[in-house]
Amino acid sequence: MNHKFAKRNNYVKASEIREILKVTENPEIISFAGGLPAAELFPIEELKKVCIEVLDKEGEASLQYSTTEGYIPLRKAICKRMKNLGIDSTIENIIITAGSQQALDLSGKVFIDEGDTIICESPTYLAALNAFKAYIPNFIEVSMDDDGMIMEDLEKALKENPNAKFIYTIPDFQNPTGRTMSLVRRLKLIELANKYDVTIIEDNPYGEVRFAGEKIPPVKHFDTEGRVIYISTFSKIFAPGLRIGWICADTDFLERYVPFKQNVDLHTNIFSQIMASKYMEMYDIEKHIDKIRDVYRHRRELMIQCIKEEFPKEIKYTLPDGGLFIWVELATHIDSIDIFNKSIKNNVAFVPGHSFFPNGGCKNTFRLNYSNMPDERIVEGIKRLGKVLRDAYI
Amino acid sequence: MNHKFAKRNNYVKASEIREILKVTENPEIISFAGGLPAAELFPIEELKKVCIEVLDKEGEASLQYSTTEGYIPLRKAICKRMKNLGIDSTIENIIITAGSQQALDLSGKVFIDEGDTIICESPTYLAALNAFKAYIPNFIEVSMDDDGMIMEDLEKALKENPNAKFIYTIPDFQNPTGRTMSLVRRLKLIELANKYDVTIIEDNPYGEVRFAGEKIPPVKHFDTEGRVIYISTFSKIFAPGLRIGWICADTDFLERYVPFKQNVDLHTNIFSQIMASKYMEMYDIEKHIDKIRDVYRHRRELMIQCIKEEFPKEIKYTLPDGGLFIWVELATHIDSIDIFNKSIKNNVAFVPGHSFFPNGGCKNTFRLNYSNMPDERIVEGIKRLGKVLRDAYI
Repeated sequence: MNHKFAKRNNYVKASEIREILKVTENPEIISFAGGLPAAELFPIEELKKVCIEVLDKEGEASLQYSTTEGYIPLRKAICKRMKNLGIDSTIENIIITAGSQQALDLSGKVFIDEGDTIICESPTYLAALNAFKAYIPNFIEVSMDDDGMIMEDLEKALKENPNAKFIYTIPDFQNPTGRTMSLVRRLKLIELANKYDVTIIEDNPYGEVRFAGEKIPPVKHFDTEGRVIYISTFSKIFAPGLRIGWICADTDFLERYVPFKQNVDLHTNIFSQIMASKYMEMYDIEKHIDKIRDVYRHRRELMIQCIKEEFPKEIKYTLPDGGLFIWVELATHIDSIDIFNKSIKNNVAFVPGHSFFPNGGCKNTFRLNYSNMPDERIVEGIKRLGKVLRDAYI
Repeated sequence: MNHKFAKRNNYVKASEIREILKVTENPEIISFAGGLPAAELFPIEELKKVCIEVLDKEGEASLQYSTTEGYIPLRKAICKRMKNLGIDSTIENIIITAGSQQALDLSGKVFIDEGDTIICESPTYLAALNAFKAYIPNFIEVSMDDDGMIMEDLEKALKENPNAKFIYTIPDFQNPTGRTMSLVRRLKLIELANKYDVTIIEDNPYGEVRFAGEKIPPVKHFDTEGRVIYISTFSKIFAPGLRIGWICADTDFLERYVPFKQNVDLHTNIFSQIMASKYMEMYDIEKHIDKIRDVYRHRRELMIQCIKEEFPKEIKYTLPDGGLFIWVELATHIDSIDIFNKSIKNNVAFVPGHSFFPNGGCKNTFRLNYSNMPDERIVEGIKRLGKVLRDAYI
């Protein structure tokens, strides 16, 4: 039997993280691999009351087909919360998506023809790369330092690729590096996008989970020509299981996104959209996010302290002011897959770094997550990992 | 500003039904347009208990990231229920999707390269056409009679298109026609698919809503070579707002679907997956479906009776044994868009038929939905529509 699959199958494989996460389902494993929020902070008792309210007040509407753009009170609440970040919008600028992941896939649908160029940070979010790969683009990677994308390299990439479809960036507490783009670079990014007439996709799932340092407005705040498509999610500030994200953009972008959104799933789960909306009406989500920040700040500080004590001094790592991840860079001759294989024998997992580079390489890197493990497992896990690393550095 | 959108935007527009449904948001409109289930049958009180149970027993898991394939107890329950339809499967054959709509979009991703041929019924489900169009195929339409696709025409299409990627069919109470493929034709369909080595996508959202006539097993039941990809949903038997559908297929198909599913939204809303699963544990969904059948049988009989009384005798219409739709065929010189424009002035809506034909034409047809309106509105709506039609036939 000849299955006759489409060509794009050759570019899309089950993600490596996914395979690693399967290993970590074993509860004995101390996992710094996934990007999971701390489940013990989910507002479970509050959501019991919220569900009853949804079914009492909007029972039929919460279970029936709904509009593609999303639940209007939720879009209003998003506009209001984004105003606090420095983004002015109306509900016409917002569509609700099944997590920010769907917003990335839809961006591929809207923009990418086979062979098109897209520009991204090096390294960048693996699942964004995989979403885009289904549309078979070329990736141009822009190198980073602790202030985010290096703007000279970005300008070079824009000059050499005048038809680039968009620049994909995660300015706040980037996945996988935990780095944040500085204010100066954000202004330069907008200046270059205007100069080279290119769209920016700003992916900001972690921005609200800042636990240290000064707030910096999103790139979208500085957008003077309506060229920034802003993507965010409730996954890190509320509950990822509900798969609620959104796109905020000018209507001439959204009129392209909406038909595709309709074709891929008609609309996002309306019961959960109303849950999120009612939760924000009935409870103080800002207080809830404060709790998340406190826990993640503590875990991040603990992990960094343990790294200082346990890792060989030569190893470089980032010091995130928010988000979920620390990025580790080893000596160039050390392959983090070898480290992973040794570490997993000691029941400690992380994600080797090469998958975050769309064009490969940089095998001497890996990503650590600190949001999902309690103190004693952070201490023990970094201790075991430190032993493996010290052995590799002998 | 030059937006540089992808070519596929030229093939995908906001669906016409969507625009019509916007008109029907006015509560004065008697709408036979959408394909909405009867909201008054949703098990709202039961779902209050279900939500509490989900949060009590699986609070953290129901709000956390989850596996791409879907919640195992839900997949088990689906296997068990499909066994009653004549489909043998294990959970390895099932992935959960965001409604069957997402299963259609993923099918496009898995199979369709630009310019590929796919074969479908004429007419067929508009939103399937729109999902596939994002991948820019050619559609070959196979004509139908009251027993479904005409097999001589299908064989001709297969002969002329040896590289067709798949046959898309809705054998039970088809959307938009309400027709059901006969047993003999199902056997012939499998025979032809085997002979011409082509994949079948069987879309069965309505099959369980049979309220008259003899049960016929799904095409998948007769599948001898693992070439039928079966798609179904909880939208018509439970609640569409939760967006829970599934794909049942051989693992060599699913290993293609799973990476794409992961890339488009990571996984389907897990809270609602557990809701559906717990609902089936705590309550008798078969009894619930019986209630739906009784209501739809009644509404269908009432609508047909009204059509007999009100429509000109020359007008042809189908007599569905289940599902949600009646298909109306007017004299060839009458354009159903004209009828729609006159009818909407009398606050009655339906869907003109030409959009259900991927290559256009057949403007003398339209689709009526009977599941979503109470008795008095069915009587009044068909009365008003009958008047418009009688005027057109003078």
